[in-house]
Amino acid sequence: MQFTARDIALMLNGTVEGDADVTVDQLAKIEEAKSGSLSFLANLKYEQYLYTTGASIVIINNNQQLTAAVKATLIRVENAYSAFTLLLEKYNTFKLYKEGVEQPCFIHESAQVGSKAYIGAFAYIGQNVKIGDNCKVYPNCYIADNVSLGNNVTLFPGVKVYFDCSIGDNVTIHSGAVIGSDGFGFAPNPDGSYTKIAQIGNVIIEDDVEVGANTTIDRATMGSTVIRKGAKIDNLVQIAHNAEVGNNTVIAAQSGISGSTRIGARVVIGGQVGFAGHLTIADGSQFGAQTGINSSIKEANKQWGGSPYLPYKDYLRAHVNTRRLPELEQRVRELEKLIKDLKKDAQ
Amino acid sequence: MQFTARDIALMLNGTVEGDADVTVDQLAKIEEAKSGSLSFLANLKYEQYLYTTGASIVIINNNQQLTAAVKATLIRVENAYSAFTLLLEKYNTFKLYKEGVEQPCFIHESAQVGSKAYIGAFAYIGQNVKIGDNCKVYPNCYIADNVSLGNNVTLFPGVKVYFDCSIGDNVTIHSGAVIGSDGFGFAPNPDGSYTKIAQIGNVIIEDDVEVGANTTIDRATMGSTVIRKGAKIDNLVQIAHNAEVGNNTVIAAQSGISGSTRIGARVVIGGQVGFAGHLTIADGSQFGAQTGINSSIKEANKQWGGSPYLPYKDYLRAHVNTRRLPELEQRVRELEKLIKDLKKDAQ
Amino acid sequence: MQFTARDIALMLNGTVEGDADVTVDQLAKIEEAKSGSLSFLANLKYEQYLYTTGASIVIINNNQQLTAAVKATLIRVENAYSAFTLLLEKYNTFKLYKEGVEQPCFIHESAQVGSKAYIGAFAYIGQNVKIGDNCKVYPNCYIADNVSLGNNVTLFPGVKVYFDCSIGDNVTIHSGAVIGSDGFGFAPNPDGSYTKIAQIGNVIIEDDVEVGANTTIDRATMGSTVIRKGAKIDNLVQIAHNAEVGNNTVIAAQSGISGSTRIGARVVIGGQVGFAGHLTIADGSQFGAQTGINSSIKEANKQWGGSPYLPYKDYLRAHVNTRRLPELEQRVRELEKLIKDLKKDAQ
Repeated sequence: MQFTARDIALMLNGTVEGDADVTVDQLAKIEEAKSGSLSFLANLKYEQYLYTTGASIVIINNNQQLTAAVKATLIRVENAYSAFTLLLEKYNTFKLYKEGVEQPCFIHESAQVGSKAYIGAFAYIGQNVKIGDNCKVYPNCYIADNVSLGNNVTLFPGVKVYFDCSIGDNVTIHSGAVIGSDGFGFAPNPDGSYTKIAQIGNVIIEDDVEVGANTTIDRATMGSTVIRKGAKIDNLVQIAHNAEVGNNTVIAAQSGISGSTRIGARVVIGGQVGFAGHLTIADGSQFGAQTGINSSIKEANKQWGGSPYLPYKDYLRAHVNTRRLPELEQRVRELEKLIKDLKKDAQ
Repeated sequence: MQFTARDIALMLNGTVEGDADVTVDQLAKIEEAKSGSLSFLANLKYEQYLYTTGASIVIINNNQQLTAAVKATLIRVENAYSAFTLLLEKYNTFKLYKEGVEQPCFIHESAQVGSKAYIGAFAYIGQNVKIGDNCKVYPNCYIADNVSLGNNVTLFPGVKVYFDCSIGDNVTIHSGAVIGSDGFGFAPNPDGSYTKIAQIGNVIIEDDVEVGANTTIDRATMGSTVIRKGAKIDNLVQIAHNAEVGNNTVIAAQSGISGSTRIGARVVIGGQVGFAGHLTIADGSQFGAQTGINSSIKEANKQWGGSPYLPYKDYLRAHVNTRRLPELEQRVRELEKLIKDLKKDAQ
Repeated sequence: MQFTARDIALMLNGTVEGDADVTVDQLAKIEEAKSGSLSFLANLKYEQYLYTTGASIVIINNNQQLTAAVKATLIRVENAYSAFTLLLEKYNTFKLYKEGVEQPCFIHESAQVGSKAYIGAFAYIGQNVKIGDNCKVYPNCYIADNVSLGNNVTLFPGVKVYFDCSIGDNVTIHSGAVIGSDGFGFAPNPDGSYTKIAQIGNVIIEDDVEVGANTTIDRATMGSTVIRKGAKIDNLVQIAHNAEVGNNTVIAAQSGISGSTRIGARVVIGGQVGFAGHLTIADGSQFGAQTGINSSIKEANKQWGGSPYLPYKDYLRAHVNTRRLPELEQRVRELEKLIKDLKKDAQ
């Protein structure tokens, strides 16, 4: 698929400087781009590459001044970064476009599938499943009985959704993610063994959520584990039974949220962070990587770090002090000696 | 599926107070229950809801006294919590009941499958596999050559079991778990590269074990990685080659056990805990979340925390002291000044 | 499959002591071996077992002296450990040998599959996929459009490779690993919501790499996430978009590498380690388990530990000091009292 500079300027409502007929068939970073590539310049840190890039076309801001000759055709737009992001998205939408039902797949006769769906080979769609319009269910996905998917949902290959779960519109779930597995609930017996507590709740994922590869979200014991609208969850994250993740909250890879913990809205969680169970975390909280949170947080919009967690600045200061501990001990040792001498003198 | 209060009282050997003909078709928490729901009251913290709940039926203890009017039909039993747990379990058994072989699936002609099995579409069952009675192998599961499953085993969708592994009775493995992948063993070469050490052992999972979603249990180099009877393992846990997990040991999500480490019986391991390799951990040990264990533990039944680990109380105290370090340094600074003054005075 | 001591001695270019006709059909550790097993003695710590083992055949070094009677047939070779490793490998190659195409599977008509391939049932091979010779694609694997695999590649069951990714020769990827899922990139909007940044790059895995079960390697935003030749990656590891892992670098389970971080060659990373984004890590660096790295490392071949990380020795010393903090505080308290007394005396 090739485009001319003229085509692209038209899409972006931009103006061409240079050869409008030059063609590109891929997107690339300005410092790595080769002939046939389209690139962009938004961050002035990279301005030097504008004059040396191999790209055939570069999108730049209207107000970008040139200080040397440029080989590439330029397309000037109001905001080069947004314009390029838009192209990225169009490119990906085109690349990932799939429609139709591949065989063999398993679709229960009671299941409803909306228009323009893609159902990949070896996908399994159970009883009473409802799938909205423009959904893509890639190969080897499993959608259990009574699950509902909204419109524009993409399940990448190998996603598993257990029975009774509900997924909203515009949700993307990456390969290997498991939605609705049993919560980890066992009642201890006097002999040291455990009896499983049946987990009969479900998982509700609201609109505009993204779930990363191999992430696990357990169903509630009763009621629902809930991922609120706009939340973004990275790979290998664990979300336990009856937890709740607030609107537009972002969780980086390998973090874990224990049972019944409620994370507020607009919370930002770094990688490998862990939350104990039954906590409530205020809106807008921010957590550094590897933080361990063992109590509820009531003040909104604060930054935290360390395990157990401290206010982020205290955590950094404590760490610096920890490093200086050998020196502090040395100072105490000297004081002890001085005092011993002083006492001797005083006698 | 609807039940009357009379039906349920009969199942639970309880007595009805109120309308025995009222029907329910779902289970719910007392504080969230709506008309048509069955709920229970066991924890007195929730007693207030008994008088306001929308539930149509509430199970309560025989000795529960009423201090106001109750709208719901009551069923009195000896132990309301156990009675409700029993109903949860019956409900789930009914919900999850599957039997028969869905097509297409792949069952090698040499495989043996017991009675009342469910084999889902796109499941793969290799050469010489033995599957006991009442087993459920959900869609997209893979069971390699020479694997044996006992009776009442459930493999949720997408579980992978590599060749030669052995799984006991009443084992449940959640979606995406991998049993028997190669141990991580490589011999360094003089040029900095590595040669793989073939991993020819297997994994043995004894009876009554539960394994969480996307958990990985590696096969032994030689011999077996062993999960003993009654162990419960949460999601995204890593268990390395030749490790052993003792009877009724519980491991929370995202914890990892390195190669050849032997965890005793009745050990309780919080989330994101890590064990180094070649350790022996005493029975009944308990580990707080994010603990790091780098040496063997001989004393049984102790609690541990921190990384590297300390006795739990020392860990908490060290943490408090770490937090107070800036203050301690200030005190040392004042002492240094006082002594300087004293020395000056003494001269 | 049975072998005589004579057969094995021939394979290993060794000499038989004892009954050359005795047969074995399995490999075992010397301390656990039973009749019919082949074992080896390389580490003198295990020498005692040579005289008590149940093994039918034991491989020993040419220079091994005997101090008591040995029941087993012995095979003497130059290096017993390497000889045994060679047998392990032959054994595994034999055990894992698969060839041919199982039905049903999905192979797009435009895909090219090399000679002696194994394509398992329910495997999916997309448009323009190129698969080299001697590759094994186990059941339930998914290989998206335009992916290329070199020669001698093994994808164990359920591996997912997203579109446009490239995998070299002699690569092994274990079950459930996901290659090429979207990088975690979202641009914040003024209302607190996020807009996804399309991830149009890919993942390049060079020759001789091993990737563990349920590990996730995200595709680059643009350009490539790269795993260099000879790198070995354990289970449940996260590698984010545009990261790079150097030649012969080893990463233990549950570690995570954030976006755009470049790990050098011959780096050794313990379990549950985390790297922040946009770092550069020098060749030959070594990291203890659970280390947290939040800045670039320029000095090669150093050891590091703790979170945030310190030179390994400083980390251990700081930890010891942290443990002694209550004692240090007590010493400061005593000094304060002594000084108070001295000042009183001085007045």
